Formats: sequence, structure tokens, C-alpha cells
Amino acid sequence: MINYKKLWQFAYDVFLAVGMTTEDASLAANVLLSADLRGIDSHGVARLKGYVRLMDEGRANARPQITIDYQTPSTATVNGDKGLGLVVGPKAMQIAIEKAENAGTGWVAVNNSNHFGIAGYHTLLAVQHRMMGFAMTNASPLVAPTWGKKRMLGTNPISFAVPAGANPPIVVDMATTTAANGKLEILQRKQKDAPDGWIQDADGKVINDPFGVQKGGALLPLGSDFDHGSHKGYCLGAMVDILSGVLSGANYGPWVPPFVSFLKPVDAPVGKGIGHFFGAMRVDAFRPSDEFLQHIDNWITAFRATTPVEGYEKVLIPGDPERISEEKRRAEGISLLPPVLSDLNELSVRFAIPL
Amino acid sequence: MINYKKLWQFAYDVFLAVGMTTEDASLAANVLLSADLRGIDSHGVARLKGYVRLMDEGRANARPQITIDYQTPSTATVNGDKGLGLVVGPKAMQIAIEKAENAGTGWVAVNNSNHFGIAGYHTLLAVQHRMMGFAMTNASPLVAPTWGKKRMLGTNPISFAVPAGANPPIVVDMATTTAANGKLEILQRKQKDAPDGWIQDADGKVINDPFGVQKGGALLPLGSDFDHGSHKGYCLGAMVDILSGVLSGANYGPWVPPFVSFLKPVDAPVGKGIGHFFGAMRVDAFRPSDEFLQHIDNWITAFRATTPVEGYEKVLIPGDPERISEEKRRAEGISLLPPVLSDLNELSVRFAIPL
Repeated sequence: MINYKKLWQFAYDVFLAVGMTTEDASLAANVLLSADLRGIDSHGVARLKGYVRLMDEGRANARPQITIDYQTPSTATVNGDKGLGLVVGPKAMQIAIEKAENAGTGWVAVNNSNHFGIAGYHTLLAVQHRMMGFAMTNASPLVAPTWGKKRMLGTNPISFAVPAGANPPIVVDMATTTAANGKLEILQRKQKDAPDGWIQDADGKVINDPFGVQKGGALLPLGSDFDHGSHKGYCLGAMVDILSGVLSGANYGPWVPPFVSFLKPVDAPVGKGIGHFFGAMRVDAFRPSDEFLQHIDNWITAFRATTPVEGYEKVLIPGDPERISEEKRRAEGISLLPPVLSDLNELSVRFAIPL
Repeated sequence: MINYKKLWQFAYDVFLAVGMTTEDASLAANVLLSADLRGIDSHGVARLKGYVRLMDEGRANARPQITIDYQTPSTATVNGDKGLGLVVGPKAMQIAIEKAENAGTGWVAVNNSNHFGIAGYHTLLAVQHRMMGFAMTNASPLVAPTWGKKRMLGTNPISFAVPAGANPPIVVDMATTTAANGKLEILQRKQKDAPDGWIQDADGKVINDPFGVQKGGALLPLGSDFDHGSHKGYCLGAMVDILSGVLSGANYGPWVPPFVSFLKPVDAPVGKGIGHFFGAMRVDAFRPSDEFLQHIDNWITAFRATTPVEGYEKVLIPGDPERISEEKRRAEGISLLPPVLSDLNELSVRFAIPL
């Protein structure tokens, strides 16, 4: 178990060591550690070495000059200047929040960025301002559209966060696939088969090998197959791709560059880097805040109190599992897997930063 | 087969006969017939008698005075004055479009409305103005949240439409459940079992009886079960409910009133009527329109051209099936089931309008 603050400090020091400003290193460490706290281990310090490698190879920029390409009272298109999404993301969301303060809502499309960590971090920034937050990002292709053989979309997550009154906020944060990559990694470590409906092989046949995607297969859209609505998961992934990629001027679909340095970007990009899309909506642009917060509390109470199916303790509210993880890990510390520890030790030696 | 224009005229005349203005009757007939044309038979003239009954009982208002409760440069909250959603919906989307013209985007939450027909009709209104359109609505509870026994959410559809250049627009229009009610109705008529993962009985056990929902069961959220991501379908349904119901001041969750007259509304409503949420985003608020349309065409071409799995002809673009249906039915006419024809004949006799 490593104490949260110690791990934050390590990430911060590494980001400084690769040349980031103190402000940017702090932002990036916040986003990274929020994943470790909230139990999304695949998106936390496990990625730190990968981010450093992207900067080593010049594919990510440690000192981005983030600029606004276009804007209207409620919108902006932001060029991330190849910065880490961990830095570009919170700054773009800040612009959305400022737009919302004046125009009621703010919507920011981002091009020329990199992997932005967990989507839920960004939407919770809006909640701090009594706004609803939206965040999504495209990602390198791992998902086959319904009836297709090839990987054409990323796991393209959507987050949506809502402020509550007496309750913690509601936070949706979901990949638009049946299973996120992180769930496959757990099965790989346990050497267990994946359930039917998670992945297909290179011919489009449903398989159970948890390494099937690495062997040329693809993840399946939420819904798994046409009979169970995989065309809806495909539609959601497409929506995220169009808003994050096409609208922003980033790459999209099969052209989205990989966020790991050991895979090369495609030869003829159709846009700049990876794309994101953020939104912030002032609650009181629609109805008085007090009324809204009271009714959200009522919504939460009603759903929490609904009768569970036998064998299950209760119905959850979106965001419950991550919040419970955060409370536990803030108190008890964060446990890291041996390969992650080994990566961090390598960084510790290289930059002479104690872990 | 009945000619499209003849059926439109019949619906229009019925709407006039119940006291609607010529403008509203025309809007309502447009929305209703778009469902019949686009192949969503459950949402077309099959509902006409139901709408008339709601007005007979005073639960829908033939002459609504639609008002704006709150607004900012990019938002409005609209009170539908108990009008049909077929009228309130297009008028609310028109406000979103006008907001977007000035502020870049426009977002309209609607309370005190009724069933609004197919969501895709409303988003296509935005596309006519070279905007992306969003539309969603809550509905009376038929869906159990993951691990829950009881119906707490409606089928809560989401539509998203995107203008293209040389291609027809991309149109997503999907219930946030594994299967829409209309698909169950088809199985009921054919006396066929539903696949695993569509519905559960009153104890939360997955069943195949296509009448299972009527017998006290529930539809399942997109994903079907936790292992296949039903918590994500539940999250999407919750998002639609919060934006359409809680944000607007309408009813939400288990309080949403039924849109059929033979079911009574709940005793202690938490808001006004059914709620919707609409959005319009100007493409050129983010990047030059020409660039955007060209890249959307490139997106469509790439996805259309991707290799299909053996046994399938091709990968579809969202909106393809509905557009193909519309072309066919505009040319060949619309075929109605005997019970629908019988309902229309009853209206024909009552109002002395020839069918």
C-alpha cells in the first residue's frame, strides 16, 4: 500500500522532471491520481511511464501553448498543441465552465491532444461550480462496428456528472463497449476466459480468449450483438468520435493515433492528434438551483430505495463504486501491481526521485 | 397500402377535428407520419386514437399556450401547457435552433408535455439548419435498473443527428434498453419468444415471454446484465431522465405519467407532465462548415467500406435503415396492421373524415 499523497508527489516530480511547468505537473498529477483513487487502475500511475515515453519520442509536448481556434458565446475549439490530455483536458473544461457562466452552457471541442485519463475527473470539475458536466474522448481503434470485422472505433468513453444537494454527485463514466479494456486485463492476469459477447476474432467470430484483441480481434460495442442492441453501442461510439474528432479537427475512426509509444501513428492523418469534447451546463440556466438539487436528492433516494433482486444488496447510483473506492484508498493507501511498481522504480532511478 | 399523403391528410383532419389550430395540426401530422415513413410503426398513426383519447379525458390540451419559464443566451426551459409532444417538441427544437444561431448552441428542457413521437424527427430539424441535433425524452417506467426488481425508468430514447456533405445525414435514434417495446410487440404478434436478456419477471428473473412486461416484469437496460454492461444502459437511461425530467421541472423516474389513457397517472406527481430535452449546435461554431461536411463524408465512406463479417452484406451508417424505409414507403405507400386500420376507421366514423 502506498499513501495517496506520496504517490501524487512522485507523479508530480516526474512530470516536473520531463519539463512540465509546476501548474501543468500539478494538474496532470491530480488527474492521474484520481484514477488510482477511484479504482480505475488502468488509467492511473500505471500509465505514467507511457506518458514519459511519448514525451521522449516527441509525440507529446511537455510545454504546450494551448490556443483557441474558434469560438462563439457558448463554444470553443481548442488546439492542445500536443500536450498531455491530463493537462489539456482540465484547461478545456475550464473554458467550458467560463462560457457557461456567461451563456448558460459551454461546449469545447479539442484537437491535437493525447490520452486524457479518466473522463469522470473532468466532469466533476463542472460539479464544483454547480454545473452538470459532460466529457468524452475518442481513442485508437479497438472496436468493430456491428457486422464489421475491423477495428474502427476506440472504446470512446462518455462521462456525465450532476450536482446533488445532500447526496454526493451522480457520476456516469463508461466506455461505449460491452467491456472496457481494463476488465480484459484483469482476466488476462487471472488467466480466465472472457464471457461471450465481449470480443471477436479477426473474422468477426465471438471468442473467449482474453488476449483476442492483441491477436487481431476487436472489442464489441455495448450490446454485444445485433439482437442485444450492439448497433446502439456502435451509435454511441460513433457519436463520441464525431463530437471529439470530426467536430474538433482531430483524427477520427481508424485514423486516431495510439496513445502508447510502441505503436506508430497511421501514415496519413486526417486531423491533429486525439480529440475530446467537453460540456458544462449551469443548473440555474434551466430552473432555480435549490429546486433542482432537492429533486436530484429525491431521485437518488428513490433509486437507492428500490427493491433489489434476490442475491443483490441494493441498486447503485452512478458513481457509487468509484466514490467508495476513493474513500477507502484515501484512508488506506493504494495497492500497486508488481509490473506497475517496477515501471515506477525505473522512473525513480532515471530521474533520481524517491518512490 | 395507403398513400403517404392520404394518411397525412387523415391525421391532420383528425387533429383539426379535436380542436387544434391548423399550424399545430400540421406539425403533429408531420411528426406522426415521419414515424410511419421511417419504419417505426409503433410511433406513427397507430398512436392517433391514443392521442385523441388523452384529449377526450383532458390529459392533453388541444390548444396549448407554450411559454418559456427561464432562459439564458444558450438555454431555455419551456412549459408545454399539456400540449401533445408532437407539437411541443418541434416548437422547443425551434427555440434551440434560434438560440444556437446567436450563441453557437441552444439547449431546451421541456416540462408539462406528452409523448413526442420519434426522437429522430426532432434532430433532423436541426440538420436542416446545418446544425447537429440532440433530442431525448423520458417516458413512463418500464425498465428496471441493474440489480433492481421494479420499473423505475422509461425506454428513454436518445437521438443525435449530424449534417453531411454529399451523403444523407447521420441519424442515431435509439431506446436506452436492449430492445424497444416495438420489437416486443412484433414478437407478440408472431407468438415468438423473446431472446434472453430483453426482459425480466417481477422477481428479476430473466424470462422469454414476450408479454412478460404486461405481466408485471420489466425491460432490461441496454447491455442486458451486469456482465454485459447493463449498468451502462441504466446510466444512459438515468441521464435522459435527469436532463428531460429533473432539469426541466417535469416528472421523472417512477413518477412519469403513462402516455396512454387507460393507465392512470401517479397520485403525487413530483413535476409537470412528461419531460424532453433538445439541443442544437452550429457546426461553424467549432470549425468551418465546408471542412466539417467533407470530413463527415470521409467518416461515412470509411465506415461504409469496412469489411463486413461473413453472412452480412455491409456495415450500416446510423440512420440507413430508416432512410431506406422512408424512400420505399413514400413511393409504395404504407401498410397498416388490421388493429391499426380498425382504430383509424373508428376515428373516421366519429369525426366523419374519410380514410
